[in-house]
Amino acid sequence: MSPENFDNRRRLAAEALGTMLLLATVVGSGIMGERLAGGNEAIALLANTLATGAILVVIIFVFGPISGAHFNPAVTLTFFLRRELPLGLALAYVAVQIVGGLAGTGIAHLMFDEPLLQLSTKIRTGPGQWLSEIVAAFGLIITIIGTLRWRPDAVPYAVGLFISAGYWFTASTSFANPAVTLARSFTDTFSGIALLNTPAFIAAQLAGAVIATVFIAWLLADKK
Amino acid sequence: MSPENFDNRRRLAAEALGTMLLLATVVGSGIMGERLAGGNEAIALLANTLATGAILVVIIFVFGPISGAHFNPAVTLTFFLRRELPLGLALAYVAVQIVGGLAGTGIAHLMFDEPLLQLSTKIRTGPGQWLSEIVAAFGLIITIIGTLRWRPDAVPYAVGLFISAGYWFTASTSFANPAVTLARSFTDTFSGIALLNTPAFIAAQLAGAVIATVFIAWLLADKK
Amino acid sequence: MSPENFDNRRRLAAEALGTMLLLATVVGSGIMGERLAGGNEAIALLANTLATGAILVVIIFVFGPISGAHFNPAVTLTFFLRRELPLGLALAYVAVQIVGGLAGTGIAHLMFDEPLLQLSTKIRTGPGQWLSEIVAAFGLIITIIGTLRWRPDAVPYAVGLFISAGYWFTASTSFANPAVTLARSFTDTFSGIALLNTPAFIAAQLAGAVIATVFIAWLLADKK
Amino acid sequence: MSPENFDNRRRLAAEALGTMLLLATVVGSGIMGERLAGGNEAIALLANTLATGAILVVIIFVFGPISGAHFNPAVTLTFFLRRELPLGLALAYVAVQIVGGLAGTGIAHLMFDEPLLQLSTKIRTGPGQWLSEIVAAFGLIITIIGTLRWRPDAVPYAVGLFISAGYWFTASTSFANPAVTLARSFTDTFSGIALLNTPAFIAAQLAGAVIATVFIAWLLADKK
Repeated sequence: MSPENFDNRRRLAAEALGTMLLLATVVGSGIMGERLAGGNEAIALLANTLATGAILVVIIFVFGPISGAHFNPAVTLTFFLRRELPLGLALAYVAVQIVGGLAGTGIAHLMFDEPLLQLSTKIRTGPGQWLSEIVAAFGLIITIIGTLRWRPDAVPYAVGLFISAGYWFTASTSFANPAVTLARSFTDTFSGIALLNTPAFIAAQLAGAVIATVFIAWLLADKK
Repeated sequence: MSPENFDNRRRLAAEALGTMLLLATVVGSGIMGERLAGGNEAIALLANTLATGAILVVIIFVFGPISGAHFNPAVTLTFFLRRELPLGLALAYVAVQIVGGLAGTGIAHLMFDEPLLQLSTKIRTGPGQWLSEIVAAFGLIITIIGTLRWRPDAVPYAVGLFISAGYWFTASTSFANPAVTLARSFTDTFSGIALLNTPAFIAAQLAGAVIATVFIAWLLADKK
Repeated sequence: MSPENFDNRRRLAAEALGTMLLLATVVGSGIMGERLAGGNEAIALLANTLATGAILVVIIFVFGPISGAHFNPAVTLTFFLRRELPLGLALAYVAVQIVGGLAGTGIAHLMFDEPLLQLSTKIRTGPGQWLSEIVAAFGLIITIIGTLRWRPDAVPYAVGLFISAGYWFTASTSFANPAVTLARSFTDTFSGIALLNTPAFIAAQLAGAVIATVFIAWLLADKK
Repeated sequence: MSPENFDNRRRLAAEALGTMLLLATVVGSGIMGERLAGGNEAIALLANTLATGAILVVIIFVFGPISGAHFNPAVTLTFFLRRELPLGLALAYVAVQIVGGLAGTGIAHLMFDEPLLQLSTKIRTGPGQWLSEIVAAFGLIITIIGTLRWRPDAVPYAVGLFISAGYWFTASTSFANPAVTLARSFTDTFSGIALLNTPAFIAAQLAGAVIATVFIAWLLADKK
């Protein structure tokens, strides 16, 4: 995951394309799951989980050695705080993650013959949801930094599995990603979130990431 | 995945048998899923997904070091364009993939006591479906070439996971393979596609593969 | 998977215990799936598939380096035909596999408060079923010998995934194992098979294994 | 999994946090599964299984090299019996596992807007349940010690897969963990167990662990 050999154009292309594939999967599999599940939300969410976990493993394998495979401003924030990414590049990462995410939602809509532009009407709010997003982002950062330290080869699997669990063990289904949150506010399908609910989600995600960054730095410091 | 040590008879046998197992699985698990799911299409598709993703991992492990484990004319096209496969052998690969795929559909029919020869009546058409196949083939080629570069040991898992996601995040369930598309037009069961709808699917798949081949070659070129 | 360092008592204990755990899982998860699924056979079979695939990975990891982790007379036959196991030890393997399998069925019954001794009344017969068992055993042996040659570290995953696929792509749900077949005739629950139907299943399994043993030996022979 | 490089504060923090995440997942995914599954218990248990298996892989990757990733007094007992953990530290492990588990149940309640403090009313008792817990703990210890010997890199996957199987092949859904058992008595949701039923479960788990510890020590002893 050391992107020294690639220029910034390729790193940004990797972040954009990866986040696009991630959102196309989250939104697309949500639509497919809802259409086929005959009203059983658990089955729709199982399909959503399976597809999201699987694509995460794939895009981290493919893009990891180029850009680090963040696809997530909260992850980029963590690497910035760890001084492993300069501020300018970090901001560029976040910008292309947002653009890529929105494009992914749009591609999902086009594939499923849905109107291209939509605004979600799904309310996701309240302390339980916000705590869920803190826990989700905390867990995701712990997963990435911890596995990267001991078993960098296994990071793709660890991230895919953590998010698969997060779909079910948090009340919010673990968005855990500001770019994903924003992109999901532009779909009025299974995976949507009302735009008005996104600031609190994003704040919770960034808080969870910062807490995790501090904690894991302490935990992983070797005994003197 | 360097097939230098095997003669062409063994490479072609590997491609034929692997594609046969792939189609037996896609068609067979579709029949089993539909029969048992009691009308819930999401559950049938989950079973279809699980079986297809699993067999892909297996046949890439077993046949990869012999033939490269393409099982897919779009993948063979990519390796031909990358000058890693001569034209004559590439054409032979495609021929045995088609024959193997048809045989796989037939074996699935025999196992499930279905008429051996069938023609699908399932309509799969329209811009959303075609875009889905472009996205599916693009993603599959990106997955293969990207993972092969960084983590050749993980290619079987990456391909199995990408197709598992593709079943759900594309509106077409990600055929992503001309030999599979053709073979599925000869079954009038869950996984079928009307023969008349196959040319557009195949054109979309080849287009997606060519775009991906060009893009990934640029993306993976190291900084000078 | 070279059991040179263990004496025969330990090898036989590994085969017996592994086959016992395998059958406890096949039969037990079938009972649990059927009880909870509310009549939806696809959901029951998904649970059966998940549990069986998972336990196979585990018991091959744990017992593989001791006994080779056959748990299956058809696999033991293959290694005998390949002259990797002497006749006497092969027969002892088969004997403890049968005993272990029967014990596993019994333990599943005790855990689920079922009568200890049962005879299955589930009819599984006909050419489609028999072809399924030939295909299942053929595929299993190809999977084991092929993966063992190229990626011995991945054999546990490959076997678990092949059987997971086999539950769905063969009409018989891929028994693929004479010891499993016999043990499943002594349970009148989800996974059972009538005792009268077992000889044809076992013959088909052994035929599939022999065909696969010959074929894979040819396929994997390097070019001179 | 050799924790020599970390001081005891970090080891205990790893055990506490890991067990907390494990319980948050078991209890949280149980609530989510039950809420969405529309009364189909098999689908709820599939979700519970998926989430639990996935988080186990993750937390063993992240915390394994720090504390050994026990998260389970029965596992700690095994390592104590194997003289790989001194008594004082073993007792401290158990204490923080219990505290972490209770905290995890509480966090799940807060995320899902459930009352923080609950007592389970779900009866789980009888010889079938107790035998199930002996089998579950026996299998878990065999899985850990056996895989640790041959394939330490695969322990996270093996444990996640064994518990995934255990959810279905044992009648008790494989608690297999005294800290988990205790923490689950404080939730009156899908995964709960009445407090009065916990002593027998815990006794069965410890018995299974001791039997497994003795057996696997014999099995893995090399031929002289």
